[in-house]
Amino acid sequence: MPTLNETHDPKLTSWVASANDGRTDFPIQNLPFAVFRRQGSQEAWRGGVAIGDQIVDMAAAAQAGVFQGDAAAPAQAAAESTLNQLMGLGAAAASALRRALSQALRTGSAQQGALQACLVPQAEAEYTLPARIGDYTDFYTSVHHATNIGRLFRPDNPLLPNYKWVPIGYHGRASSIGISGQAFKRPKGQVKPPEADTPVVKPSARMDIELELGVFVGRANALGEPIGIEQAESHIFGLVLFNDWSARDIQPWEYQPLGPFLSKNFASTISPWIVTMEALAPFRTPFAHPEDDPQPLPYLSSTGNSTAGGLDIELEALIETAQMRAAHAGPARITHTNYRHAYWTAAQMVTHHTVNGCNLQPGDLLGTGTLSGPTLDQACALIELTTGGKNPIQLPNGEQRTWLEDGDTVILRGWCQREGAARIGFGECTGTVLPAQGG
Amino acid sequence: MPTLNETHDPKLTSWVASANDGRTDFPIQNLPFAVFRRQGSQEAWRGGVAIGDQIVDMAAAAQAGVFQGDAAAPAQAAAESTLNQLMGLGAAAASALRRALSQALRTGSAQQGALQACLVPQAEAEYTLPARIGDYTDFYTSVHHATNIGRLFRPDNPLLPNYKWVPIGYHGRASSIGISGQAFKRPKGQVKPPEADTPVVKPSARMDIELELGVFVGRANALGEPIGIEQAESHIFGLVLFNDWSARDIQPWEYQPLGPFLSKNFASTISPWIVTMEALAPFRTPFAHPEDDPQPLPYLSSTGNSTAGGLDIELEALIETAQMRAAHAGPARITHTNYRHAYWTAAQMVTHHTVNGCNLQPGDLLGTGTLSGPTLDQACALIELTTGGKNPIQLPNGEQRTWLEDGDTVILRGWCQREGAARIGFGECTGTVLPAQGG
Repeated sequence: MPTLNETHDPKLTSWVASANDGRTDFPIQNLPFAVFRRQGSQEAWRGGVAIGDQIVDMAAAAQAGVFQGDAAAPAQAAAESTLNQLMGLGAAAASALRRALSQALRTGSAQQGALQACLVPQAEAEYTLPARIGDYTDFYTSVHHATNIGRLFRPDNPLLPNYKWVPIGYHGRASSIGISGQAFKRPKGQVKPPEADTPVVKPSARMDIELELGVFVGRANALGEPIGIEQAESHIFGLVLFNDWSARDIQPWEYQPLGPFLSKNFASTISPWIVTMEALAPFRTPFAHPEDDPQPLPYLSSTGNSTAGGLDIELEALIETAQMRAAHAGPARITHTNYRHAYWTAAQMVTHHTVNGCNLQPGDLLGTGTLSGPTLDQACALIELTTGGKNPIQLPNGEQRTWLEDGDTVILRGWCQREGAARIGFGECTGTVLPAQGG
Repeated sequence: MPTLNETHDPKLTSWVASANDGRTDFPIQNLPFAVFRRQGSQEAWRGGVAIGDQIVDMAAAAQAGVFQGDAAAPAQAAAESTLNQLMGLGAAAASALRRALSQALRTGSAQQGALQACLVPQAEAEYTLPARIGDYTDFYTSVHHATNIGRLFRPDNPLLPNYKWVPIGYHGRASSIGISGQAFKRPKGQVKPPEADTPVVKPSARMDIELELGVFVGRANALGEPIGIEQAESHIFGLVLFNDWSARDIQPWEYQPLGPFLSKNFASTISPWIVTMEALAPFRTPFAHPEDDPQPLPYLSSTGNSTAGGLDIELEALIETAQMRAAHAGPARITHTNYRHAYWTAAQMVTHHTVNGCNLQPGDLLGTGTLSGPTLDQACALIELTTGGKNPIQLPNGEQRTWLEDGDTVILRGWCQREGAARIGFGECTGTVLPAQGG
C-alpha cells in the first residue's frame, strides 16, 4: 500500500477520468465520505467515497471483497447506513482505508475492473446525514465574529474578557440538523422589539445564515478521560460545511441568561461529503495568537507544529433568490473568507470540550461558529454584513437583502488550493427558506 | 380491560403482595417503566415494569404472549433494550399497555400464573438508561431558583425581564447522562476568581447539585410542525428524578455570552423508573400565574383544565458523606420541596420548545430546571442553600457542607401522596462524586 504522504502526491491520477481535470472538488487526493443512495429509489442508504463525478459504492465494494488486509474492517464499516462505526474505529483504520482507496483508484490499478462496477454517478445520487449525530456543540472560534456581534450589543465593550482564554462553546440541537438541500419553514417565536411593552409570537423577520465548518468526531473518549491537545486530532474524523441558520429577532429576547435556543434549533444544514483531516494535511497553516494576546493555557498549547495548526480553507456563501432562479441568473456571492482566521483550532475545540471529562462519541458534530474574517466583506452572517440590519446588501440583479426572504436559497462552498498540491473541495451545502406555517 | 380511571382506584390490590403495603413507591396504581437485567449478569437489557419489590420482565412476558389485543404491540416494544420504540408509539398505545398491566397484576387475575414466572426481584436487578437520549434540553421553570440565582449575580435586578414570558430553556449534553448509581470524577476546568488576573485550570472546588425532574418525550413531531398546548401532554411519556450536577466555579467564567457548558456537561443522573403521566393523573394541581404577573401568551394557554395543570410531587434531596457511610448513620435530608411551585408546566415546556418547528423525538429528555420552592429550606441547589457559599449547611453528625466533597453521595427522592389516592413513588436517583483525575 502507498504511504499516507503518497496519497497527497499532486501528480497522482485516477482511472476515473473526471477526477483528473484540476477543477473537481474530488480528485484522488481527497476521497471524502458520504452516505447516499440512487435518487428517488428505495435502495438502502450506504457509505460512498467521492472520486471526480462518481461515487464508490462502499456496500458494493465490500460485497465484491475489493478491500483486504487492514482496510477490510474500515471498508466494511463504510458500507453501513451511517458512518458512526467507521468513525469509531479511529485514525489508524481510517488511514488504512484512505491508502487502500488511493491505490485502488489510481491509474493502472489492478483493482480497476472490480471497482468500476461499484461506481454510481453523483448526478444520480441523493444523500442523507452521514452519521447519527448524538450531540452537537457549537463553538465561537472567530474573534472577528465575536467582536462584530459584541459591538452591536455592547459598543464600548465588544469582546468579553473570557474570549481570549476560553474556546467558548455551547450545546445545540442535533435532531434538526439536515443534509444539503434541506428546505425548512421560517420559524415563529416570541419577539419583543425594545420599544414594545410585551412580546408577540410571529414569523421571524430577521432570518440569517452562519457560515461555519462542522467537525465530525471520530474515536470516542470515555467519560472522565480528557483528550490531551496532542491527541485531539486523532479524535477528529473530518470536516463538512455547516450553515447554522439563525432567527435574529427571536435571539435577543430569549437568550439571557442561558444562551440561544429557539433562535437556532429549527434547522441547521451540513454538506454531504466529509473531508478527512488526512486529505487536508497539505493545507496546514501556522497558527499563533497575536503576541499581545494571552497565550493559550498549557492544556490548549501544542508542542507539535501540526496538531494545533490552522487550516487554509477558502469559504464562500452565495444567495440565489427566487427572482434569480426564475431568470436562470445563477447565485450571487455574498461573502468570501478563509478558515485560517479562526482564533481557536479544531484540536483546541476537542481538548477544551473534554477537559472536564465530558465524553465525545463517534458522529458527534462540533461547529466552529461563524467564521467571519478580519474585514467586513469576510463576515459570515447577514447581521454583520448589514451592520445589524442597517445597510442592506446589493445583489447583482438589482435586488437587496437585509435578511433572508422566503424562497431564498443559500449555498456554501469550501475548497483548498495551493501551489504544489491538488485542489481539495467540500462540494456544496445548500438550504432554502420556506414560508412560515400558516402565513 | 379496565378503564383508565379504574387503574387509579386506591382500593385495587395486586397478587404481588409487596405492592399492597401502602408504603411502596410501586403499587399497582403506578406501573413505571425501566430497562434492567440481573445484576452482574451478561443478560440482554430489556424493559421492565415495577410492581412492589418486583419487576415484570417484559421480554419474558412478550415471549410468553401474556399481552394481547391493542396491548400486544406496546408490550413487545417494552421488551426492547431501549424504550424509544414504546415511547414513539404514543399515548394511546401506552394507555392500552397500562390497562392490560393493571388487569394482569391485580388480585385474582387469570394471568397471574403466566406472569408470576416473569418476575425478577428488584434487589437482584441493575438498570441502564431507559432510552437512547437523542437530545437533552434543560429548562428553568422555578421562578424561585431563577430569582435566588439572579440575586447572587444582580442583587438589584434578580429576575430578567423575559422570565415571566418565556419558558427559558437551553440545550444540554446527552452523552454524559447516566443512570442512578453513577459515580463520576470531579471535573477540572478553567476558573478565574474575580480578584485574579488570569484563569487557572484546576478541579472544581464548588461542586453542586440541581434537584430537577426529567420529562421523557413520547410521540415525535415532524420538523416544522409545532405541538399545540392541548396536545402537548400526549407527547410526554413520563417523568424521572434528575440531578443536573454543576461546577459553580467553572460556570461564571465560561457562560457569557452563550450559556453554561463545561460547568454542566461532565455528568447528569436520572432515576431508572419512568413514572407515566397517567399514573400521575390523580395528583393534578390547579395552575395559574400570580394575578399581577403577565398571563401566558395564547400559544402557552390551555383552555382545558388538565393539560396545563401542575403536579403535586413531593421532592427531597439527601446527602450521605463518607463519614456517614462509615458510621452506617444513613443519609441526611438537605432540602424538601414540591413540583407544584414550578412557574411553567411540562406541557408549556413541550409547546414552547416546538413553537418554532423544532422536532422532538421519542426518548428526548427535557429537564425542568432546579425546582426550588418559595422558601430557603425548599431551595434545590447548594448555591442557594448556602447563599452563594457564605453559610454552610449543618449536617446532623456535626459535619458541614458548603459544596460537595469527594465521596459524597446525593440521593433524590420523589413521591405523590394525597387523601383518596394510592401513594405513587419515583424510587431513588443517587450519584457520587469521586476525586478529580490526578488529584
